[in-house]
This record gives sequence, structure tokens and C-alpha cells, in this order.
Amino acid sequence: MPDFGAFLTDHNVDGLLFVGDSLCNSDIFYLSRFLASDRFALLVNNGICLLVSAMEMGRAEKESSADEVLSTMHYSMKEKLKITGNFEEAYLHVLKEFLKDHNVERLGVASDFPCRIYNYLLNDFQVAMIDSPISRWRAIKDHEEIEAIRCVQEACQDAMQLAIKLISKAEPVGDNLFWKGEQLTSDRVRGLIEMKLLKKNCDAIGTIVAGGPQSADPHAQGTGSLPANAPIVIDIFPRSKKTRYFADMTRTVVRGEVNAEIKDLYDAVLDAQIAGINAIREGVSGKDVHFQVSETFNDRGYTERDRRGFMHSTGHGIGLDVHERPSLNEAGEILATNNVVTLEPGLYYPEIGGVRLEDLVVVAEKGCYNLTSFEKRLEI
Amino acid sequence: MPDFGAFLTDHNVDGLLFVGDSLCNSDIFYLSRFLASDRFALLVNNGICLLVSAMEMGRAEKESSADEVLSTMHYSMKEKLKITGNFEEAYLHVLKEFLKDHNVERLGVASDFPCRIYNYLLNDFQVAMIDSPISRWRAIKDHEEIEAIRCVQEACQDAMQLAIKLISKAEPVGDNLFWKGEQLTSDRVRGLIEMKLLKKNCDAIGTIVAGGPQSADPHAQGTGSLPANAPIVIDIFPRSKKTRYFADMTRTVVRGEVNAEIKDLYDAVLDAQIAGINAIREGVSGKDVHFQVSETFNDRGYTERDRRGFMHSTGHGIGLDVHERPSLNEAGEILATNNVVTLEPGLYYPEIGGVRLEDLVVVAEKGCYNLTSFEKRLEI
Repeated sequence: MPDFGAFLTDHNVDGLLFVGDSLCNSDIFYLSRFLASDRFALLVNNGICLLVSAMEMGRAEKESSADEVLSTMHYSMKEKLKITGNFEEAYLHVLKEFLKDHNVERLGVASDFPCRIYNYLLNDFQVAMIDSPISRWRAIKDHEEIEAIRCVQEACQDAMQLAIKLISKAEPVGDNLFWKGEQLTSDRVRGLIEMKLLKKNCDAIGTIVAGGPQSADPHAQGTGSLPANAPIVIDIFPRSKKTRYFADMTRTVVRGEVNAEIKDLYDAVLDAQIAGINAIREGVSGKDVHFQVSETFNDRGYTERDRRGFMHSTGHGIGLDVHERPSLNEAGEILATNNVVTLEPGLYYPEIGGVRLEDLVVVAEKGCYNLTSFEKRLEI
Repeated sequence: MPDFGAFLTDHNVDGLLFVGDSLCNSDIFYLSRFLASDRFALLVNNGICLLVSAMEMGRAEKESSADEVLSTMHYSMKEKLKITGNFEEAYLHVLKEFLKDHNVERLGVASDFPCRIYNYLLNDFQVAMIDSPISRWRAIKDHEEIEAIRCVQEACQDAMQLAIKLISKAEPVGDNLFWKGEQLTSDRVRGLIEMKLLKKNCDAIGTIVAGGPQSADPHAQGTGSLPANAPIVIDIFPRSKKTRYFADMTRTVVRGEVNAEIKDLYDAVLDAQIAGINAIREGVSGKDVHFQVSETFNDRGYTERDRRGFMHSTGHGIGLDVHERPSLNEAGEILATNNVVTLEPGLYYPEIGGVRLEDLVVVAEKGCYNLTSFEKRLEI
């Protein structure tokens, strides 16, 4: 964990306050390692202090890595609720006392801090909206975090293996794939992936199994029968239930005959990915990596226009969120050792289909190492 | 969907703006029915308009219920990114143009609106922080929503059935339960529950299977071997992957011998739950229902103190969030027909264990109807 004291001094604040639930706000989870679906407050000053509901006290004391855990009861939440008759108002009073109790006068909050609490605190504190350092800190993983991501990636690969095996066993009949006499659907393949991931103690939300024209929309989850002789994009981004870290991988396959257009797309995407991977190392910007990838496509005549071609960024950091810093796009910042990023070039043409290949790499001093060991084969 | 026009007029605003991701912000999902893990903007004025990234255009147009879908590209996001070199700044400019384009001068935002965007918009708009009506609208379910919750509740009951069956087949040996020669653990039972729910196309995050002393902490998820002759609390709150609605149910069971203390706790909780259910109807406050439940406990000598006894609220609304309005607690508001709420009294004593029973009911004019048909039996 970085040096909080130095950060607070540099920014002329006595503390940095977060209010939210750690299920959705990964900054809060990162700082507390306490998972709660209900809102709680976290103050960074002399160490990390949590303010949770009485209900959560026992669990927070046991599970969180915080230096101090206090309950809203400690600041007479019940009595304040009786006086105000309004939960929100009572909570604001509690929060104020909690901050005063921790000798906070100059307070820092992040840009996504809830505006009502922000406005309320302006009455009693000097509140500075600061560029929160947490997402920057989170972008550089320690050994344990990389190991957590690697483990999820293994589960991800196991699930991908099962999915591709099932598709490879399906029979192309006309334009569709059949398995055991029935049309093979996106949902069937997705179900198999999710079941495997659950067995590996991972959640998978939003898994993409999109075939044919659907594959040309990079965010379509995919539905209905899977096509023969056309690209099927499989994008899996599971999260470990235990560590809360994500992995992310995409493969594109065709069951049946591969025509020249699809083959050309695939080769271009593969080359673009290699160009991206080769460009990655500490000190290079995400913008430069993205440029290398885009140029590879441009050189082959796949120039992006009208939501066709390479229409998204090259990749993104991954960790406690599926999308986090650093970004590999037009505004991508400088990469640092132990950033973990995806590299996922893709080409999308409604009349041909979409092709995307995504690996997960750890940025190193002179290159990167790939956490993905899954083969890339179009025709199955 | 309620009358937006009237709400805007009443609050002297031209539009109500939300910025967030609909995976975490259920108000945004409720208004758009568009599920996205990346942030987007939603404006309520003449209908509902979404502002999404270019990547999400295709999917948003297909999947969302919004009246209009626009892309950040429409407001030259790429060019602004090139000029500013900063994604956040470019986005703020896009957002401003989007609002001007929709003739917004007086803007309403909810209390959890991100404070940086709020501050930025103050430069060009009259921004009012208003008590967002969405959580109030969401609290009253329509027929389709109740049906969605009922379906998840069915899946929840199937999973509970499996869990209790497994525990009932385990052998009490000494202080622990054994199944097929091995100690039966919380994780084993939870795994069974999660697998069943996934087969029913539901996610289950945070399922509680807590035995013995762990059961006395209402938020402990439970870990390690399950005890014989002691309470095991099973609390399942799955969410449908398809509809995004939650259900919620808790049962407490003992495998082995039930001593008098546990039996007394169980009877008290059962009676308190019945008192709560009997109190529920349109026009009664959540506070009153909570009072009926608390009084039942007090009458039997189970008065709450020092985080022992009945230490939490009686229940909560449920829908797109597992905890939503209305609350059944000391500050509980007036109930209305078609609120869907849990009724979950519990008693917690570290030296005896915890007992909680939770049903899900729909508030009606003269009472309520129970969506839970699962038996309540302590000894199995």
C-alpha cells in the first residue's frame, strides 16, 4: 500500500473520505478489503478507519484490513434517527461527528463522491475535490494481485476450452450449428461457461457468445442459434468470488468453412495484436500502443469509419474492476511495470462478422509477459 | 412508468440527469432497462434519452427502452479528446453540449450524483439537488415486476430445498455434521445453492450458510464445518440474470438435537414474524410494523442490548436492489399497495446462536400476500 501520509500532506488535506458500497466502488474495497453491499464510510488519515452500521460491526472487525472500525451506533445513530426522523439526515450528522472525532478540518473527496454529502460537509469542513490517487495506485499490481489475476485467468481458460470444444463438436447443417439434434445456441454455450466458472468459484456476468452478424457488434452478448461458417466471438471476463479480481479473454472461432474475407480479418487482428504486444513496455504510453495497433489495421486497408472496422480501444487495465487504469486508447497514459492490461484488437463488419482476440499481459521493464496461454485458432 | 412531466414541472427543472453505470445504479437501469458496466448518461425530460459511448450504440439502440439514444461521438468526443488530451474533461464538454442540445437550463440531480460533474455543470446550468423520485417510484411494483420477483423467489426456494435436504442427510457426530465420511462445510452447502441458482439463470452473491456462533452475527457469510445440535442460518438472495430482480429468503435449521434455549428463540422469531405479517397493509408505516415485531420480542424478554437479541431492522423493500425502499425499521415510511418487502426478524446470542426467518410479501390494501411458500421447520 502506498504512502498515505505523503499524499495527504502534498494535497493539504487531513483526510480522504469515501462513502459508498464496496461491492460497486472498488476503490473502497481496495482500501478496506471489506465487501459490503450497503454503503459505509472510509477515512484515510492516520491509517484507514471504517464507519459501518451496527449490523456490519462484527464482520468488518473480522474481515477488513482497516486499522480501526467504528459503528454509526458509536455516534448515536439511533438517537439521531429518533430526533430527525430521517435516516439520511441522521447519517450526515453521524458522519460529521466521525470526521471531527478524527481531527479532520481539511477534507479531500474524489470526483465521484456523492454530491449531497459533499454539499453538506462544505458547511463544516474545507472540502477539496481531488484527483483521487486510488485508481493510480490500483493500476500497479503487487505480486499477490498478479497471482490473483493469473488464477482467475486459468479458470477463464478452462471455461473457454469447454466452450470451444462444444462448438467444435457441433455439426454445421445449412447456416446453423447442431448438437445432439438440436440447434446450438449462444445461451447453451454461455451456460456451460458460467457453470464451469462457478465450479472454479468465479462469477461471470455478461459473457459474450455472439455469432454471425451479432459478432459485428462488439458489445452484443449474443442470443439465439449459433451460425455455421461464420465467426463466433467468445469473450469471458470472470471475477473470483474469493479475491474479487477479474480476468478477461476473447477468442474468435468458425465452425465449418472459413471464407477468405473472414480469414483476412482474422490475420489482420492477429497481426495487430502482435504489434500491440511488441510495443508494450514500461515508459511507453497506452496511446502509442493503440497507435501501433491502429496503424497495423490502416496498413491493411481496414480503416475505421461509420462504426465499422476497429472501432474501440486496444485495451484496458484490469484488476478489481474489469475496466480500470491504464487505458490503451487515444488518450492512454504512460505504462508502468506491473500494470495488468488487456490487448484486444478487433474488426467489425456487419456483412462479414466480427473478429476479436484478447490476451492479458503484465507490463515489464523491457516488454511484457502474457498471462494468457490459450491457443488462437480460427477454424475448429 | 410515472408522469415525468409533472415531476419536472413541480420541481422547476427542465430535466433530471443521471450519470453512472446501470450495473451498480439501479435507478439508471430502471429508467433505461439498458445494462452496462461502463458509465453512461441518462436524461429525463421529454421522455428518456441516453448518451452512451460509440461502442455501446448498437446494443443500447436494441436493448434499451429509452426514447432516444445518442453517442458521445455525436458530440465529437474524439475531437474533444484530441484537444483536451484528457478523457474526463472531454466527457464533461460532451455532456454540456448534450444538455444544451436538449434545451436544458434548469437541471435536477439526485443526492448520489458525482460531485465533480455536479460542480462543473454549475458553471452553465441552474443545478438543483433534488430528492430523486426514482426510489419512490421503484418501491411500487407493477404486475410484471412482481411476477419477476416471484420467479426468482421460486428459484430461491428450489435452492433452499436442496441445501436443507443435504444438511438433513448429514450425520451428527460429536459437535459436527458429516456427509459421506467428510465434515459438511458452509462452502459445500453454499456451492450447491449457487449451482442450482445458476441453472435457474440467477446470480447469488453473498449467500449465508452460517452455523453455531457464526449464526449469531447476522452478516457473517459462514465458513468451515457446520455444527450438529446448533442453529444453521441459510439466507439466500439471488438475482435473475434476465430480469435483474432479486428475491430474498432465510431459514434456520438444526440437524441433531434441539435444546430448549434454541427452541424458545425459534418460537419467538416465528411469533414475531407472524406479528409483523399481520401488521402489514397499505397505509401502515414500516415503523409500526417494526414496532409490532420488537414488542413481540420484548414481551418475551428478548430485549436488544449490546449487539445481542433483535439487533437489525424488520425488513426492507426488494426489487432491482436487494435493499431498497420502503424500510421496515424505526424510521420506516408508510406502506403502499404493491410494495414488495422482506419480513426477517431474528435473535442473536453468541452463546446460543442465531435464528432468523425471512419471507417476502407484497403489500395489499387490507393485508399482504406472501410470495414465500417454503416451510418453516427448525429440526431436520
